[in-house]
Amino acid sequence: MTPLAASAGVADVLVDLFVLLVAAKIGDEIFKRIGQPTIIGEILAGVLVGPALLGWVEVGETIEVFAELGAIFLLFWVGLETKLDDLRDVGRTAGLVGVLGVVLPFAGGAGLAVALGEETAVVLFAGAALVATSVGITSAVLAELGIVTAPAGRTILGAAVVDDILAMLILGVAVGIAGGGGADYASLAVSTVLSILFVAFVALGGTRFMQRRPGILKEPRFSESPLLPAVILCLGLAAFSAQIGLAAIIGAFLAGMVVAETREQHPIEEEVAPLYAFFPPFFFAFIGLQLVPEKYTDGRTLSLLIAFTAIAVVTKFAGAWLGARSLGAREARIVGIGMVPRGEVGIVIAGVAIAEGAVDDEFFAIVVGMSIITTLIAPLVLRAVSRPVAQS
Amino acid sequence: MTPLAASAGVADVLVDLFVLLVAAKIGDEIFKRIGQPTIIGEILAGVLVGPALLGWVEVGETIEVFAELGAIFLLFWVGLETKLDDLRDVGRTAGLVGVLGVVLPFAGGAGLAVALGEETAVVLFAGAALVATSVGITSAVLAELGIVTAPAGRTILGAAVVDDILAMLILGVAVGIAGGGGADYASLAVSTVLSILFVAFVALGGTRFMQRRPGILKEPRFSESPLLPAVILCLGLAAFSAQIGLAAIIGAFLAGMVVAETREQHPIEEEVAPLYAFFPPFFFAFIGLQLVPEKYTDGRTLSLLIAFTAIAVVTKFAGAWLGARSLGAREARIVGIGMVPRGEVGIVIAGVAIAEGAVDDEFFAIVVGMSIITTLIAPLVLRAVSRPVAQS
Repeated sequence: MTPLAASAGVADVLVDLFVLLVAAKIGDEIFKRIGQPTIIGEILAGVLVGPALLGWVEVGETIEVFAELGAIFLLFWVGLETKLDDLRDVGRTAGLVGVLGVVLPFAGGAGLAVALGEETAVVLFAGAALVATSVGITSAVLAELGIVTAPAGRTILGAAVVDDILAMLILGVAVGIAGGGGADYASLAVSTVLSILFVAFVALGGTRFMQRRPGILKEPRFSESPLLPAVILCLGLAAFSAQIGLAAIIGAFLAGMVVAETREQHPIEEEVAPLYAFFPPFFFAFIGLQLVPEKYTDGRTLSLLIAFTAIAVVTKFAGAWLGARSLGAREARIVGIGMVPRGEVGIVIAGVAIAEGAVDDEFFAIVVGMSIITTLIAPLVLRAVSRPVAQS
Repeated sequence: MTPLAASAGVADVLVDLFVLLVAAKIGDEIFKRIGQPTIIGEILAGVLVGPALLGWVEVGETIEVFAELGAIFLLFWVGLETKLDDLRDVGRTAGLVGVLGVVLPFAGGAGLAVALGEETAVVLFAGAALVATSVGITSAVLAELGIVTAPAGRTILGAAVVDDILAMLILGVAVGIAGGGGADYASLAVSTVLSILFVAFVALGGTRFMQRRPGILKEPRFSESPLLPAVILCLGLAAFSAQIGLAAIIGAFLAGMVVAETREQHPIEEEVAPLYAFFPPFFFAFIGLQLVPEKYTDGRTLSLLIAFTAIAVVTKFAGAWLGARSLGAREARIVGIGMVPRGEVGIVIAGVAIAEGAVDDEFFAIVVGMSIITTLIAPLVLRAVSRPVAQS
């Protein structure tokens, strides 16, 4: 019988969204009770209901959009709690962390591929897959620990922006070479300049504008409630960000930072909170949905996964830790660990690589496995390492 | 250049969602200022950015899911403001309105098709398309006018449930006959009984359970905030409703009514408000997206559209008004007008008919046109008719 007020596809997607939300909520509650990071519970919930185990939910476009909006509202929320000055204070360190946290992992991933005798395109993608940090994962953990605005937290956020611009560059080169035409350096240069201008313009111009007109989001000619204008700004900057080749969450984070300057920050935080509660579980569960364990039954694949993951952890930690040494040993350790999770970013890069026909299924499975493992490990270690501060 | 943290499809959907939200918000503000129902502004915004005019946004699965969630959170909200006793008071009248508001429009639509010499399947679909009321549209207007809980408002809500069960039946028969196998009356009987049991069980059992355990949504073993349990209940009943062939919004409305019995009603309303602000604009704009004006340039199509729309308005008003006479002339008029908008329901039925191969493009265009016109007219008239009460 055909459902009346929804096409069959829509009715089935509703069921998927319901199952994901329930599973994530249960995972969240269990991990809260055993005193572990709740996002791990939500990721494992995705593993449980996804293709890995029960197979109740499959990834489709709508689930992907919900996951993306989850990351967007997550970073919007983090932006709302961040002032531009907070980032400026850690600017130099964040830049160093971003650059070193890109160079070492790239060298590690590419080096492994070279050692295995792979082609240039594979070498580049292997490097690119290790480059980008999933700041969504880290900031959710930092928020849960209440240290998003600590120097380490701010450094990670700043470094993530640098990270993402560099990752975009590397990915652009990799895609160009995989396409056979070589990298299109002119268009890459344009993208890079555009990205840097966008970030600088929004971060500097947007916040200054808001400081001068702190009441604008609630002016009667705009809206009764400041929520929709704020959400529209967030979605708009996120969409623009994605269109110029940056991560959508960079735009969302900048939007949050701009809105944080308004006089309406507190009512907006209160009104955004339900969106922040509703969407992010889809983001975390989505990561778990990507796991297909049968892909790792082959001995060679499994050893490559272990080697690749070890390189991912060591190079990212070393690079970020080196860059953050000026913050002191403890904070440097938090930054180093905080940059380790690759989350959805590694998975997306592997997806691009396979779409370009540059890599095979095994490569994809290894990158996905590495992304999930680093994403599960880092929060656990981060929680253990940062606990003393949370108590002080 | 490939966006980093989102596949190209997701990045484009983000842009669509942004454009729809901005357009709807602008339409909303303009209509608020000229003192007209804001949902008309949002529907016209969909017309503007959709295929009818600018062509910036096309309907895809994700947009459809957002629209559906818009209707779901709309009816969840209405349910939160409705007590079971409120419905019981108007039960008999609502039943009468529901039945008469189905019988007359069905006869009108089917009669026109018979007069035109159409086949049985077309006759049935023409009747079915006129049957169901878009309670989402009406309740948004009633909420804006502040009369959702007035007797007329409650009658419309109750009648909509009756309406939807009958519409499901008629549609089931039409699909069966269009499929060539004849209607499967056994499975239709099962669906009907299941639907009635579902509605009765949730409405009676759910509210009674909640009255006995009014604190359950905030018990610590469930959740820190009552929002997610409430949203999960809403999504779950909506998805179940859609799976058994009812409209998803019936489940959402029932969920709201159950949650309204909890002690946490007020904090839940506050937390649901942002979801209620975020999703419904997609529902209204979505209706406008369906309009393709070129389809009505043919003289025959245009005259059929006018005739069909006139029958839609007159029969629904007459049936509902007859059923509601016991409420007094003024309330009966509000009920009659309030049942007129066909909104998304007419469009969905036309979509089913075309998917079954039972009707042609022209039929589809006429039903879509009728749905949009009734949806635009009714709120304007409703506002004018009900104004005296809002002032008293």
